[in-house]
Amino acid sequence: MPNPTAAMIVIGDEILSGRTRDSNMHHLAGKLAEVGIDLKEARMISDDRDAIIDAVRELSRRHDHVFTSGGIGPTHDDITADSIAAAFDRSIDVRKDARALLVAHYAKTGTELNPSRLRMARIPEGAELIENPVSAAPGFRVENVHVMAGVPSVFHAMVASVLPGLTGGAPLYSKTLRIDRGEGDIAEPLGTLAKAYPALSMGSYPFQKDGRYGAHVVIRGSDAAAVDAALAELQVAFS
Amino acid sequence: MPNPTAAMIVIGDEILSGRTRDSNMHHLAGKLAEVGIDLKEARMISDDRDAIIDAVRELSRRHDHVFTSGGIGPTHDDITADSIAAAFDRSIDVRKDARALLVAHYAKTGTELNPSRLRMARIPEGAELIENPVSAAPGFRVENVHVMAGVPSVFHAMVASVLPGLTGGAPLYSKTLRIDRGEGDIAEPLGTLAKAYPALSMGSYPFQKDGRYGAHVVIRGSDAAAVDAALAELQVAFS
Repeated sequence: MPNPTAAMIVIGDEILSGRTRDSNMHHLAGKLAEVGIDLKEARMISDDRDAIIDAVRELSRRHDHVFTSGGIGPTHDDITADSIAAAFDRSIDVRKDARALLVAHYAKTGTELNPSRLRMARIPEGAELIENPVSAAPGFRVENVHVMAGVPSVFHAMVASVLPGLTGGAPLYSKTLRIDRGEGDIAEPLGTLAKAYPALSMGSYPFQKDGRYGAHVVIRGSDAAAVDAALAELQVAFS
Repeated sequence: MPNPTAAMIVIGDEILSGRTRDSNMHHLAGKLAEVGIDLKEARMISDDRDAIIDAVRELSRRHDHVFTSGGIGPTHDDITADSIAAAFDRSIDVRKDARALLVAHYAKTGTELNPSRLRMARIPEGAELIENPVSAAPGFRVENVHVMAGVPSVFHAMVASVLPGLTGGAPLYSKTLRIDRGEGDIAEPLGTLAKAYPALSMGSYPFQKDGRYGAHVVIRGSDAAAVDAALAELQVAFS
């Protein structure tokens, strides 16, 4: 049975303007690989209602899971929650259980729960909350879309609380061989090997260091014995 | 007149598997902001022919420019050039001018131009070459799609050779103010300011450091005087 598939949507003008370098996609990619969910696509889009609605609708139809990051804070540019509600034609309002989480959190820190902070309790109708052990304001799940925060520490914590509840597939097993030869010398033997092991995925990632060329060849698959056997053949070919 | 828009497509299984963290998108985003081309969307997709064709067709219709990175090397998993040709219904073959670049480069280094390396001279019919001062194998442009290498040093060099030929818009001017208050306290004054300056984009990017909360507020726009004026108001509000 093929693994479940996933897509990620990174929401935020700060990524596309070059101000901030996203790190959440790389984090999620590694975590999904561990549990056997294949990340097929990631999109970075701006804080734009129509862009969010279009991406969520398209990717939630096409994949088993969708994960978003960004845009669920208290400021005027945080429009993700409302856009997700619109994408699924659901109403959205401050919800009691989400509000209670904020009340408890801010009481502890002596912070006022003002109208801006209360916006973070706006949850689409029928959504399930995602726990935020870092700063209380919850994420949520609507259908197969997991809506999470952009701040990396919060995003990581939300991923950790969401992933155990998802059914994964066969975790991807991978081995890497560094070959200190130009990719042009690696290509033919590697292509032959790839044909001999059609169930495995083989990638060659070139590097250039101190004026010398080389490549990391990565062999991936759910069958660990096949990966090891292919790697051994590759080692012999370049020994 | 609104600025030209752009999209980027990062092609490569290694990004989506979590093995490699992409840096090309962040590089391109910064360079495009400098010349006034608005990066509206970035997609990371796998080395999959149909995924490449779909993304290229959709984004090249929707934006003034599309930039791709990855998948133009000599190995069997490098399928970008052939997929781009297919996306535009063009034929593809080894082209004389591209071959000549490789012949000259490999003659200098005493490297054999074998069939694998020669694959890097496969160029879609009617494409324009993009210079590669690092390792010779060229990128190319088909219509509004600029096809470039994934190796960051080569990608950077190709971006540097492509951008001066594009017509930009008004460069985005931006100022950042760090405010050591929770975003919930920043939200209301910032929202009021955003309404007063509808032509500017204002974003709040929270951070948490040593247990304290704060945010970087970024004000962006093509009118530098308006950005400065708005920033001054914000400083007064939080002084």
